[in-house]
Amino acid sequence: MKQVKYTLDEKQIPTEWYNIQADLPKPLPPVLHPGTKEPIGPQDLAPLFPMELIKQEVSTERYIEIPEEVRDIYRLWRPTTLYRARRLEKALDTPAKIYYKYEGTSPPGSHKPNTSVAQAYYNKKEGINRITTETGAGQWGSALAFAGACFGIEIKVYMVKISYQQKPYRRVMMETWGAKCIPSPSEETKAGRDMLAKDPDCTGSLGLAISEAVEEAAGREDTKYSLGSVLNHVLLHQTVVGLEAKKAMEEIGDYPDIIIGCVGGGSNFAGLFLPFVKDKIDGTKPDIKIISAEPFSCPTLTKGNFTYDFGDVSGNTPLLKMNTLGHGFIPPPIHAGGLRYHGMAPIISHLMDLGLVEAKAIHQLDIFKAGVQFAQHEGIIAAPETDHAIAAVVEEADKCKESGEAKTILFNLSGHGHFDMSAYEDYLAGKLQNYEYPQALIDDAMKEIPQL
Amino acid sequence: MKQVKYTLDEKQIPTEWYNIQADLPKPLPPVLHPGTKEPIGPQDLAPLFPMELIKQEVSTERYIEIPEEVRDIYRLWRPTTLYRARRLEKALDTPAKIYYKYEGTSPPGSHKPNTSVAQAYYNKKEGINRITTETGAGQWGSALAFAGACFGIEIKVYMVKISYQQKPYRRVMMETWGAKCIPSPSEETKAGRDMLAKDPDCTGSLGLAISEAVEEAAGREDTKYSLGSVLNHVLLHQTVVGLEAKKAMEEIGDYPDIIIGCVGGGSNFAGLFLPFVKDKIDGTKPDIKIISAEPFSCPTLTKGNFTYDFGDVSGNTPLLKMNTLGHGFIPPPIHAGGLRYHGMAPIISHLMDLGLVEAKAIHQLDIFKAGVQFAQHEGIIAAPETDHAIAAVVEEADKCKESGEAKTILFNLSGHGHFDMSAYEDYLAGKLQNYEYPQALIDDAMKEIPQL
Repeated sequence: MKQVKYTLDEKQIPTEWYNIQADLPKPLPPVLHPGTKEPIGPQDLAPLFPMELIKQEVSTERYIEIPEEVRDIYRLWRPTTLYRARRLEKALDTPAKIYYKYEGTSPPGSHKPNTSVAQAYYNKKEGINRITTETGAGQWGSALAFAGACFGIEIKVYMVKISYQQKPYRRVMMETWGAKCIPSPSEETKAGRDMLAKDPDCTGSLGLAISEAVEEAAGREDTKYSLGSVLNHVLLHQTVVGLEAKKAMEEIGDYPDIIIGCVGGGSNFAGLFLPFVKDKIDGTKPDIKIISAEPFSCPTLTKGNFTYDFGDVSGNTPLLKMNTLGHGFIPPPIHAGGLRYHGMAPIISHLMDLGLVEAKAIHQLDIFKAGVQFAQHEGIIAAPETDHAIAAVVEEADKCKESGEAKTILFNLSGHGHFDMSAYEDYLAGKLQNYEYPQALIDDAMKEIPQL
Repeated sequence: MKQVKYTLDEKQIPTEWYNIQADLPKPLPPVLHPGTKEPIGPQDLAPLFPMELIKQEVSTERYIEIPEEVRDIYRLWRPTTLYRARRLEKALDTPAKIYYKYEGTSPPGSHKPNTSVAQAYYNKKEGINRITTETGAGQWGSALAFAGACFGIEIKVYMVKISYQQKPYRRVMMETWGAKCIPSPSEETKAGRDMLAKDPDCTGSLGLAISEAVEEAAGREDTKYSLGSVLNHVLLHQTVVGLEAKKAMEEIGDYPDIIIGCVGGGSNFAGLFLPFVKDKIDGTKPDIKIISAEPFSCPTLTKGNFTYDFGDVSGNTPLLKMNTLGHGFIPPPIHAGGLRYHGMAPIISHLMDLGLVEAKAIHQLDIFKAGVQFAQHEGIIAAPETDHAIAAVVEEADKCKESGEAKTILFNLSGHGHFDMSAYEDYLAGKLQNYEYPQALIDDAMKEIPQL
């Protein structure tokens, strides 16, 4: 069998992130203030984020330098390996060439530290020694905890209470890196106390955890807040994935016809495709297909509206123009916790509106079927989120088998599933089902989208 | 910061395993038949192992070719990365240079598939489509399950019942790769039924699980048995670790003064040091210190006798000359499940007897302290077994700080701790204690060692 792994030299870790805002055919719509509905300025965000990240949020510079201190941490796991899935190709009997960039070798096990490390660095540089955040199942919280350990920053994570109780191991991971993790709703914020007064048994939600983390950061001089997806600067930091993949494929002498990734807030997928979509925009590679894979149970891109909405459930964040199912939309309890978000990164939503990205929804049973198939041939047991991408890849590879075309497919294997084995257990035991959200309920949730 | 990762090219995956039996100053003592107490021949082992592995067990050829089919699977994660722990060095303020070979990126998360893949291959080649084995916490069972998926071999794992119930995720991993995993004691073997008749609530033990797996393999023409440590052929397969490490250090222009690894059965550590101990034997590097790190609670090398004993608790296996605490020794329930074995690989025991390897025992609280320190500086959360090696490394690095010597330390980071977070949870919650086995109880257990 021929080579399966392509790993760049450590010296080839990118020195700059790629900023898509420099190359958009049409600029991103402005972010609006939740009260005035007018475009916000940097000072509106200053209580929550360090100024350097606020600048990156709106920058139109094509390349933004990666600080040497951030690259020093990236060295612990970057450059990540680009694999050729030769054993899967053979099992599928497809003429397609399947490549994947594996981000699961970072200490927290996913792409998330590409941005948590950068965010922690800029906070530290501006004198911030304390950051709050929220986490659902714990992927993001553990990535920020790791970054906090790297720079000596105190990290406080509001973890949705039901996950805190049922999935203790991500929490222990955070604590091992020195972070404080508390169940949300908590007694430590007004948002938490109000909820507990209403319902002492409340098991929490991501929207509520966001409210608690934001409230604490906004109320304390010494504390900022950090978000793990959706925002422009988060996607910017993730472009190390795509820049490395592009460089490796260049060295191999190949280029993807199809790029695939799973999307919740959108950061892992954007990280991979943004450096390639540049070539589609400038006409060098007009025919690349860029496919977002999302769950049928939370079909933000395939059924949502492209409009202004809040980022959180309670409606306190600035208004972002994005694909949304309505900020009150509560997805069913699928196992891919990282994809259960009502909105989508404004950059991805905008590119889809421009016809540069497409989307497909996938059923839960299909994603686990693909994940098990992948594990049996390629070895890696992927996160259920990532299995959405794998299912879409298998479908494209099957199309190639039918048509006889030897297309080159590239996808982001965004994380391993070592902390998600209960999901595989339920699948293998036949306990899972598909969820397709009734259109009427989606229509209801979308009625809550604010009218401007 | 300077380079931290050294990864060989995929073409540099070793083409041959290194066989220490070619270079031993004194040959290994023979293996004896449990009944006759006479040296056994290949035919005695034929019901359990394919002939090629039996030949490897006694071979004195210096290099044994790695079949291309095995290297093709190794490619999925090999060569593994050799890291320089620059951030840990800085935190310890030591002049020592600390390197580690990280085996946790294999699909099952440890060094174990280096041999499971080879064993599965030789079985398949000799027409065997079914293998039984036992597993405690699940590291070995999952490695063999992965290997079974690679070659289309049915794997049946007898998993100690208490682990089967309390630690379901390794089991789900095995099932995801297609293996069958059943709790031991089971109704499927005489050994299991006898035990259940005596004690229906028996939660099992590794010794009993071995008995069940061996009984089934011995009783079925179509089935062989597989062992994950201790035996010579297992250590042989693990030498890919040391061969790669040696090559990488050669490219860096460095050579270890001290080599450290944790030991249970001994395979991960032997895999690392055997290609180096060769240089100590032939006088090229007479001064390398080779240190085995074992738990105080199961002090096989530091307190055991070097004598003939059985490999299993019930006394049915051939007699091996090895360090042993007595085959009836039951270690306390420490979290490093992989180090709870009464014996030690005959090769390591023999090398220690020859004065080529030394050993030290480490307390449970010290290993977790070192593991947390390592995680906070190097990112990787290691398995509790591996934390024994890390604790020994920290101690040697501290000695260098005192003496001012810039020694080069190399250790095997044999696996990640993603399935051991409950151990870290207990440590962080202050629930753990040190265990030092009373000498009187060790003496009692050693009385059971057979007299020849």
